[in-house]
Amino acid sequence: MDTVLTKKTKNLKLKNFDPADTSPCKGGKAEAEERTDRLREELSSLQELIAASGRDKVLIVLQGMDTAGKDGTIRKVFTGVNPQGVNVASFKTPTRIEAGHDFLWRIHLRVPIGGEIVIFNRSHYEDVLYPVVHKTVDKKTIEKRYGHINEFEKMLTDEGTLILKFFLHIDRDEQTKRLRSRLETENKQWKLSAADIAEREFWKDYRKAYEKILTLTSTKYAPWHIVPANHKWYRDLYVMQALVDALKALKLKAPKPDYDPDSIEIK
Amino acid sequence: MDTVLTKKTKNLKLKNFDPADTSPCKGGKAEAEERTDRLREELSSLQELIAASGRDKVLIVLQGMDTAGKDGTIRKVFTGVNPQGVNVASFKTPTRIEAGHDFLWRIHLRVPIGGEIVIFNRSHYEDVLYPVVHKTVDKKTIEKRYGHINEFEKMLTDEGTLILKFFLHIDRDEQTKRLRSRLETENKQWKLSAADIAEREFWKDYRKAYEKILTLTSTKYAPWHIVPANHKWYRDLYVMQALVDALKALKLKAPKPDYDPDSIEIK
Repeated sequence: MDTVLTKKTKNLKLKNFDPADTSPCKGGKAEAEERTDRLREELSSLQELIAASGRDKVLIVLQGMDTAGKDGTIRKVFTGVNPQGVNVASFKTPTRIEAGHDFLWRIHLRVPIGGEIVIFNRSHYEDVLYPVVHKTVDKKTIEKRYGHINEFEKMLTDEGTLILKFFLHIDRDEQTKRLRSRLETENKQWKLSAADIAEREFWKDYRKAYEKILTLTSTKYAPWHIVPANHKWYRDLYVMQALVDALKALKLKAPKPDYDPDSIEIK
Repeated sequence: MDTVLTKKTKNLKLKNFDPADTSPCKGGKAEAEERTDRLREELSSLQELIAASGRDKVLIVLQGMDTAGKDGTIRKVFTGVNPQGVNVASFKTPTRIEAGHDFLWRIHLRVPIGGEIVIFNRSHYEDVLYPVVHKTVDKKTIEKRYGHINEFEKMLTDEGTLILKFFLHIDRDEQTKRLRSRLETENKQWKLSAADIAEREFWKDYRKAYEKILTLTSTKYAPWHIVPANHKWYRDLYVMQALVDALKALKLKAPKPDYDPDSIEIK
């Protein structure tokens, strides 16, 4: 199964995507880590060119079930890249002011400006997840949101933003393992909240909601990547490689000075 | 001279502070880099605790003459720290909307939220620099701004923000060297703008404006550090050490879970 979805796919089923796949990296964890480290150097150079341009905008959307590894992916892919020009926006339960606006309002405030890479740790896709599972928003409004998201992302793309969307795909057994590990490790316990544990009851509903998202919001200009994420090392390599490939395709160049260097003398 | 200013100092003169001082690091560049690397690991752990708390807020203000090394300090101190929870706000020439508000408006929008470290690359102090040197704002308004800045920073502190302000101190010869290097290195030329070269004519005026800032806005709750910055390796070590010391003093601890771990079973 191709993990890059560039258009609507009828009847997309997550069970057709193997969350434990690591086949493109035959050398296992050691090879993956080595490749990820090498790619990080490329990423650093590419990021420098983006910052220099002050023009290119890059938006990375990370979604996934609880414990799928959104925080870990950010840490592993971006630690080692100059934080100037890399910003992370984490979207939690909306505040009263945020919830008082349309669902794209708080998102729009945080999209990258020229020269920036912005990582969304959760995003506008949360507004077609929780409300779908818990029926807190009426169905008609929800149904329209998929189209609004596509139009919004189209507008961002037309205005010069490169959008990469990653769904970190784990299975329920892997979540069980990770939740248990958090529960059993004293200095990880705070990472787990009573609410997380309660939400786990809705695993199937979330999965269905994600299948609908992946079906309706995969576009040529803002494709979803279904990232096999049971193995953290493969997940990191996957995201890193996809990001570096996409940035390289921009064919970035260092900008020209706004003066004639030969005409200037520094006294 | 003590480089940490915790209160107003009458007749502060920058010539009394040696921009080339490296005396606290006898081992020179090699020792400094080794210490900086070691401290970065401490910083990483401390940053994790800040993010975990979701409560502590840290604001780092970087100011200095052109080429003093604001970008370099950010790159050197923070590359290697998890970018989640570390955000950089760069303040450039104000937009029409920004300029249409009071000078603290755009600043207030970018102060850290709980759990964040925010680095200001330039800041509200630009509003008592350019307008002072070029007389674009009337004197009476400018005079009041120092007090407004102090009150604003007091409020942030009282509401739980730790503020660290670094003035990266270089001398004119060092600036000459750095400007020439940018001019002569083809892939650095874009870092220099025609405006930078023009502003250099006002070196003395900027220096005087900085002396006034350092005099009037050094407070116990938001002290200025005058960082000897002629040597980049010492500048990085200085900022890193001051930051780690300040964060350690917060005595951060991992938060407690909001449930009883023994009462939960993950099925």
